[in-house]
Amino acid sequence: MRDAFHEDLDKISDDLVEMTRLAGSAMARATTALLDADIHLAEGVIAADHEIDQIRRELDDRSIDLLARQQPVATDLRMVVTAMRMSADLERMGDLARHVAKVARLRYPQSAIPPVLRANVLQMGQVAERIVAKAGSIIASKDIDAAVELERDDDEMDRLHREIFNQLMSGKWEFGTEAAVDATLVGRYYERFADHAVSVARRVVYLVTGEWHTEAELDGEE
Amino acid sequence: MRDAFHEDLDKISDDLVEMTRLAGSAMARATTALLDADIHLAEGVIAADHEIDQIRRELDDRSIDLLARQQPVATDLRMVVTAMRMSADLERMGDLARHVAKVARLRYPQSAIPPVLRANVLQMGQVAERIVAKAGSIIASKDIDAAVELERDDDEMDRLHREIFNQLMSGKWEFGTEAAVDATLVGRYYERFADHAVSVARRVVYLVTGEWHTEAELDGEE
Repeated sequence: MRDAFHEDLDKISDDLVEMTRLAGSAMARATTALLDADIHLAEGVIAADHEIDQIRRELDDRSIDLLARQQPVATDLRMVVTAMRMSADLERMGDLARHVAKVARLRYPQSAIPPVLRANVLQMGQVAERIVAKAGSIIASKDIDAAVELERDDDEMDRLHREIFNQLMSGKWEFGTEAAVDATLVGRYYERFADHAVSVARRVVYLVTGEWHTEAELDGEE
Repeated sequence: MRDAFHEDLDKISDDLVEMTRLAGSAMARATTALLDADIHLAEGVIAADHEIDQIRRELDDRSIDLLARQQPVATDLRMVVTAMRMSADLERMGDLARHVAKVARLRYPQSAIPPVLRANVLQMGQVAERIVAKAGSIIASKDIDAAVELERDDDEMDRLHREIFNQLMSGKWEFGTEAAVDATLVGRYYERFADHAVSVARRVVYLVTGEWHTEAELDGEE
């Protein structure tokens, strides 16, 4: 039997995993909406974002309540504080998926993404899905070896992001300024999504190992 | 005489104000670096960002220590948790100033900003400086009326941000794709900077009034 504190902490951990699932689903659907100019899918992602916000709000309220009632110290205290930071990362990931969906909606019935970048954006969507799924597993399992893999996915995302800039800066961009603006923003949304997933994973590693990262590293950006 | 807890809290509040000062100074210098293609100023902003990171790290460590030692409840507990959230906002504002400085550095010896957008970017820099200074005053004074003013500055930032898009989408953009990408990113950095300042102010209002905002609102983005 676990004590009340650790039961509460398990529930918080479950909610964080649920947030990774929702954020991943949102980004997967946003990617399809963007590439297929699917307005219904885009609207669905935009409308569903409040679910993630709601879980975060409840999770944070419960965390503060837990601090007040149980007054944890040492590792237990760090776990609760870290959970609140992870919920902030995950809520932001939901926002970024919504931003992608909004670009899809703005350009409907066209797709915002020109043919030359389709494969690239498709891959960014796939990496985003993979990285947030791994972040969820890491929260659930505390398997810090998996966190190393997730850093490799982030490197892949950075490579795909640079590839967008290479296309934009090649001097051969022929899709106009509007498409350049869209590609710039969308690229940044995917990259930030991955940064926050890395941040989540690093926070778990920190809890398990106590190994210090700088805050800039913990926030997924060096 | 204030008790030990409130003395510690005062110190945390002082550090938050210092972070607003550093973030404001960084963004002011980054704006000048960007408009004047001043590489030394840009390098200075990039190099100085670790100071804000360092204050945040110490502030968060002290906050966690405070939770462990003093085990505050109710409003006192919320103040400490909120201080950690504000430190995250302010650290991120430092990152965004650094991002602007990096665009300046990347395009040196040219300015990344074409003539048609110079006045616009200058104003964004001024609004950014003003909004973070107000956020600092609000933290120091708990003057929640000032928070209303700050929302107006944020509206002004949004207007300036839209103006960049209007220029980019006018069909008359003649400065090439690279300049369009730079303007898109820079515009977003300023806008996010203001969002985080709004977030800081709303958190103070929340502490003072207990009036609930959604987390999305508290994070400065609806």
